[in-house]
Amino acid sequence: MSTIFTKILAGEVPASFVYRDDEVAAFMDIQPVNPGHVLVIPIAPIEYFYELDDETCGHLFQVAKKTLKAIRDSEIPAEGINLFLADGASAGQETAHVHLHIFPRFQDDGFELKFAERYFQLPSRTDLDAVAYQIRQFLKL
Amino acid sequence: MSTIFTKILAGEVPASFVYRDDEVAAFMDIQPVNPGHVLVIPIAPIEYFYELDDETCGHLFQVAKKTLKAIRDSEIPAEGINLFLADGASAGQETAHVHLHIFPRFQDDGFELKFAERYFQLPSRTDLDAVAYQIRQFLKL
Repeated sequence: MSTIFTKILAGEVPASFVYRDDEVAAFMDIQPVNPGHVLVIPIAPIEYFYELDDETCGHLFQVAKKTLKAIRDSEIPAEGINLFLADGASAGQETAHVHLHIFPRFQDDGFELKFAERYFQLPSRTDLDAVAYQIRQFLKL
Repeated sequence: MSTIFTKILAGEVPASFVYRDDEVAAFMDIQPVNPGHVLVIPIAPIEYFYELDDETCGHLFQVAKKTLKAIRDSEIPAEGINLFLADGASAGQETAHVHLHIFPRFQDDGFELKFAERYFQLPSRTDLDAVAYQIRQFLKL
């Protein structure tokens, strides 16, 4: 399946690259939350995060960590940095190719997380234990 | 430095664990965005993401990937899933110990990202190239 990212990797669409190797690439998001907003993607056109193999997953986040450090070390304004990944359209994934967002943050930059009412109604320990139990039943490590 | 997470790892504060090994642990967030909200942390009390060594970083996100898959495979409502990490107080980091959020999402769940006005003013390719250049100067891979 072809997306804007496969076109960028093929050189058919311009991008401002930060890094590229055989497994992952990093380039500037064209709609930055703040200047310095980078996307890190696998070279393989994989749609969902959970489909990445362990090695590529580990490597992608190691590259993300070093990119984050480079942003912090540079003169790009960044008091802090967020990582954000949307897995699935209902989570905000707009391109069917795994992509991790890395973007600088600073006080009063206007970016916010908005929570539903339920966020302020804390679950009981019994509820939390029940959900943890469900996850453990399906966790394959 | 002691935080709520070191106390949880020491068994001094209750938590609903999903996973634990010698390097990382995963347990339920007590204030979930949606039910099934997990935090994955390194066992070592490391404050900033960029301070993680490569091995622990890679392993943490491999565990995150498998936890995300377990949530998707379970009966916990999750049309999609977000990963979110705040590195630094200005990015929303409230506990001085690296923690990755993994939370289920579904249509109209009330969680939203709110962007500043600048988000809708796209930068030029020249601007993007200049920022990419700055990051490349500091990237150590």
